[in-house]
Amino acid sequence: MTNSLNLIILYSAAITSLLMMISKKFWIKKQEVLEPEILKISKDVHKGTISFLKRQYTSSAWVIGSAFFVLLFLAYKDFISFYTPFAVLTGAFFSALSAYLGMTTATKANAVTAHYTKFGLNKSFRAALNGGAVMGFSVCGFILLDLALWYSIISAFSPNLPEAELMEVITSTIITFSFGASFMAFMARVAGGIFTKAADFAADMVGKGRYNLEEDDPRNPASKADMVGDNASDIAGMGQDLYESFGAGIAAAMQAGSMLLFSTFVMIPLSISALGIFASIIGLAMIRTNNEEKLLGSIRRGIYSTSILIIAGSAFIIYFSTGSLTLVVPIIIGLLTGNGISWICEYYTSTDYKPVKLLAKKAEISHASVVLGGLSLGKKSVLPIALVLVVGMISSFYFAGFGDYNLGIYGVSLAAVAMLSTLPITLTVDAFGPIADNAQGLIEMTGGNEKRKRIGNSLDALGNTTAATGKGYAIGSAALAAVALIGALSNTIQSALIKFNLPTEINTDALNVLFLAGLLLGVAVPWLFSAKLLDAVNEASTVMINEIERQIEKLGILEGKNEPDYNKCIDISTKAAQHYSIVPAILVIVFPILIAILGGPTMIIAFLLGALFSGFCSAVKMSNAGGAWDNAKKYIEAGFFGGKNSSAHKAAITGDMVGDPYKDTAGPSLNILIKLMITVSILTCPVTMFLHYLIF
Amino acid sequence: MTNSLNLIILYSAAITSLLMMISKKFWIKKQEVLEPEILKISKDVHKGTISFLKRQYTSSAWVIGSAFFVLLFLAYKDFISFYTPFAVLTGAFFSALSAYLGMTTATKANAVTAHYTKFGLNKSFRAALNGGAVMGFSVCGFILLDLALWYSIISAFSPNLPEAELMEVITSTIITFSFGASFMAFMARVAGGIFTKAADFAADMVGKGRYNLEEDDPRNPASKADMVGDNASDIAGMGQDLYESFGAGIAAAMQAGSMLLFSTFVMIPLSISALGIFASIIGLAMIRTNNEEKLLGSIRRGIYSTSILIIAGSAFIIYFSTGSLTLVVPIIIGLLTGNGISWICEYYTSTDYKPVKLLAKKAEISHASVVLGGLSLGKKSVLPIALVLVVGMISSFYFAGFGDYNLGIYGVSLAAVAMLSTLPITLTVDAFGPIADNAQGLIEMTGGNEKRKRIGNSLDALGNTTAATGKGYAIGSAALAAVALIGALSNTIQSALIKFNLPTEINTDALNVLFLAGLLLGVAVPWLFSAKLLDAVNEASTVMINEIERQIEKLGILEGKNEPDYNKCIDISTKAAQHYSIVPAILVIVFPILIAILGGPTMIIAFLLGALFSGFCSAVKMSNAGGAWDNAKKYIEAGFFGGKNSSAHKAAITGDMVGDPYKDTAGPSLNILIKLMITVSILTCPVTMFLHYLIF
Repeated sequence: MTNSLNLIILYSAAITSLLMMISKKFWIKKQEVLEPEILKISKDVHKGTISFLKRQYTSSAWVIGSAFFVLLFLAYKDFISFYTPFAVLTGAFFSALSAYLGMTTATKANAVTAHYTKFGLNKSFRAALNGGAVMGFSVCGFILLDLALWYSIISAFSPNLPEAELMEVITSTIITFSFGASFMAFMARVAGGIFTKAADFAADMVGKGRYNLEEDDPRNPASKADMVGDNASDIAGMGQDLYESFGAGIAAAMQAGSMLLFSTFVMIPLSISALGIFASIIGLAMIRTNNEEKLLGSIRRGIYSTSILIIAGSAFIIYFSTGSLTLVVPIIIGLLTGNGISWICEYYTSTDYKPVKLLAKKAEISHASVVLGGLSLGKKSVLPIALVLVVGMISSFYFAGFGDYNLGIYGVSLAAVAMLSTLPITLTVDAFGPIADNAQGLIEMTGGNEKRKRIGNSLDALGNTTAATGKGYAIGSAALAAVALIGALSNTIQSALIKFNLPTEINTDALNVLFLAGLLLGVAVPWLFSAKLLDAVNEASTVMINEIERQIEKLGILEGKNEPDYNKCIDISTKAAQHYSIVPAILVIVFPILIAILGGPTMIIAFLLGALFSGFCSAVKMSNAGGAWDNAKKYIEAGFFGGKNSSAHKAAITGDMVGDPYKDTAGPSLNILIKLMITVSILTCPVTMFLHYLIF
Repeated sequence: MTNSLNLIILYSAAITSLLMMISKKFWIKKQEVLEPEILKISKDVHKGTISFLKRQYTSSAWVIGSAFFVLLFLAYKDFISFYTPFAVLTGAFFSALSAYLGMTTATKANAVTAHYTKFGLNKSFRAALNGGAVMGFSVCGFILLDLALWYSIISAFSPNLPEAELMEVITSTIITFSFGASFMAFMARVAGGIFTKAADFAADMVGKGRYNLEEDDPRNPASKADMVGDNASDIAGMGQDLYESFGAGIAAAMQAGSMLLFSTFVMIPLSISALGIFASIIGLAMIRTNNEEKLLGSIRRGIYSTSILIIAGSAFIIYFSTGSLTLVVPIIIGLLTGNGISWICEYYTSTDYKPVKLLAKKAEISHASVVLGGLSLGKKSVLPIALVLVVGMISSFYFAGFGDYNLGIYGVSLAAVAMLSTLPITLTVDAFGPIADNAQGLIEMTGGNEKRKRIGNSLDALGNTTAATGKGYAIGSAALAAVALIGALSNTIQSALIKFNLPTEINTDALNVLFLAGLLLGVAVPWLFSAKLLDAVNEASTVMINEIERQIEKLGILEGKNEPDYNKCIDISTKAAQHYSIVPAILVIVFPILIAILGGPTMIIAFLLGALFSGFCSAVKMSNAGGAWDNAKKYIEAGFFGGKNSSAHKAAITGDMVGDPYKDTAGPSLNILIKLMITVSILTCPVTMFLHYLIF
């Protein structure tokens, strides 16, 4: 296949995806919500969300803007290409845009979903799914558009470059786009995670712990902040995180492909991602049911069909591009690996299996027992997931290259792309979760009847399960993409060294002292980051708790004397989110730069490898522990071990509260943190290497 | 200096140390305890301890015995040297012997210390210190004896070998001795840790949580099991752990020295360790005070004097052995690094500094807040400690070798030896802690007067602080020794490959897929181990809780109708300790063997590096978090934030209960677990490498 045909496919996929997004957005927009109470809360939440986003985007714009001018200066000094500053800008811009579109739709979709529970399961289910699809298709559409544009622009500006060199310029530009995307994702995950959990932790602590209020009781002043947080973190945060993973995954695969010196290898990852959009549209159309029992099955049918279409389509693409079917194997391995990881996450966090049931039983004994039980459950889930990933990595390496190093690495990155190519549908399903969760909250707050509550509950439960499934893909692909990115870093360092006539030998021997030192620091660094994030939630929630108690005592809210002051709580969360993300943001940029300057190529590569793997394990542990605690609490609330308000329930609430910042703040932030450190390293390596050899 | 002079110094140091131990042991033995209640409890605890040790040594003897015969068979098949099986035996035997001597003395020393609180602080203080000294000097004496014996035996059996070859045989034999020592230490830490915390957790849970009993209330049926556990874990476990660290540290340094091809480099680590014994005796003599305020200062004076004597002495040894003072620098760096790490541990865990005070304040808010606070405090302590270690490692590498790789590695291992050379005094002070703790328990249980309680309390508090100090040395030296051991592994693999005419190139390039796979699995594996250990305590304590409640309800213990059945609780802990250490023991042996066979040299080295660093960080986190929770609880008990029985106190107890298995089971086990995996790899590498190349 020629590259221009490939490009045409790419543009049409991007446009199809965006059209799909627009049609779903309009569908949501035109649905009327005939219940004023629901509409009012939903509008308040919408307003809170917008005000949070505004703040976050303003501060991010300052950082990205400053970075832009610094990069422009570096380009002027010939350290980096002139495309780079602009690539960083577009990466950040499209990431923010897709999150904005997804999130503003979600706040309306909540209300529609809640309202439609009146008319039965399928209608309500479709509404939530359509809301999620806006996020899924805007993220994927904008990434492909961004990449395709850069491909076209650079090709147009350098018509006379030989193909191999052109590919190098294109891929090295595209890979820096991930810095913009990573930074936005970092802010979304960190600030969003702090926002939502400060509110949630405090609402639980005071509401459930002291005044026996139900979840989402409208008399709780933090209840709306909690809903704003769900939107900010679970929708915008997740969308931007996966935007980054997808973009970086494709970019890293293109880089790996450019090492093979044929532009066709650079194009394959793009084509497979394009394919994923068409396959997902078909898969999505297959999801519909009116039977509560079959909800999960129907979603699975959609995702599996998408996967099969992707395999079939890639076989076609790969055969016509390379003349052989060898590279289809890593595609299949990638999809299997994603599924394997998802299944393990589900096993450890779902109430259907033994681990969570046993954990719930621990709550009967004491707070400490359920806390320890959850910590150990999370820890136990790490090795199996690492094992699946390792098997996927090794087998895609070998089956792609049969010993050839560059082809092998390309295989690993194709496996990552394959996992991510289902993103339009998996992200739709992921975003469905928080929409259903909030819809359920709206029904609760406005006192819906039993039938509607039941529908809301089953959609909410479904969302929890699909979140676990989606997480598997996100975790696995992030790790594989990061491995490929570290490979890309070593290539970028090599180019920088050649450019400055420096010694080009990069020593990555592991028994070297600088390597060991870098590795140890890298392994240690995620602990600091997660500590900072846990502290942020812990500190911010203290302020929030005081405010809630003040309102309850002074305003007599519980007795219905006054309306709670919801905005005050939203304000506290917004400020805390800003305040506590400053230090992590500085550290994540300063650490890799400092280590690269002081320790050179050996130490920075070791540092990033250590941070990647230890961050991966920590993230897996924290997210599974948190998920398990949450569900153990729900299991008890369903009537086991004494049910609601028993001593077991109180202990389980402690577990859930510890788990909240674990699974929704620190856990998801770690992945993106590591990747941001890698992209910072890639972006700055021409300068840091120059300084390193200048000083030492 | 000639080697024979060195050997004479070595033997005299070993014998001096053992004589010192014997004299202290007799001193404790001949002290009369004139309070029958104290004597009775102490004897019961002694009996429980012996019964636990008997079981543990029996099962360990089976494992070591089987290993002996397997190794004998391998030696017969010419895979390994005939010295190896015997070296493993002596390593295990002397480790067990020194722990036995230390622990049996400690159970009497408790009683003496408690009794002597009648006669003022200094007398009681000296009694506890003399009890600790038995452990300190028996451990160090037996290690040096063991090493000196092997040096003499092998030299005698191979009189005609050229020096370089002789050194290789000696060091490669001596390094395998660590397998025996590691296995014993592993069993002591794992089984001892499970024993003690199952009892402690259950005693706290029922005693404090449900019936408002004080710590060490004699009506609590688990109170004696708790005291037995302190002896088993804090005295025997710690002694055997440090026995292994010290032995492995010296052996690794000797290995590194043998790479330098002069026997004098092999001898230096031995001489410095010998020096440590004489210096410690002098240092110990300087510790005495009658002033409660000056207890800590007096201990510090002793330890610092020892350090200075060691520096001065090593300068002498090194100058006369090598003709230069260069290698004194790593000695100084090693001692500074140990102190630096200790100081950081103290900062994060002592009630004198901000972190613990802030943690205690979190207890006012909720159980979840104090749990999260402790987790994050532990996490925060990781990076600073890693940083100190990295600076120590890099600087000792550079200042020893100025770029020469082998000399640099030798410098790193000398730094580890220097840290460990203060062991006779630091271990004495370490073992002092649990003796004082138990003495304080005895006073509490027998209703001593206020003055005696005050003395007991201040000795106990001192013990907590010195434990933090000792921990720094233990952690730092273990990590450095492990790095040196991994270096030794790569040498051993090389020799094995040469022997079997296999490709001798060991690829340790970090961007190799097998390396990445090994690294990820290695980083992940400590999570599984700590999960297993946390589960063990959690499960075993559940059985114990039921037993305590049964006794309290059925026997009417609280009303004084019946004596509690202490033995039943001791029995539960003993059985649990055996039962739950089987799986970790199997995993720790099977994992490295499997990975070496499947992945070859690259993967096993990566795996061990990953496991080492991630295990190190986890261990630091868990031990500091646990220490901080413990002290936060004590801080509240001292009257802050509502004092005893306030809601803050209840939350702090939850924190402490989560922290117990963190700091006393999982945390300390991780270090030794990693080192056991390394020594298993070293021991089995001739076979695993043979099988790897046979299969692949």
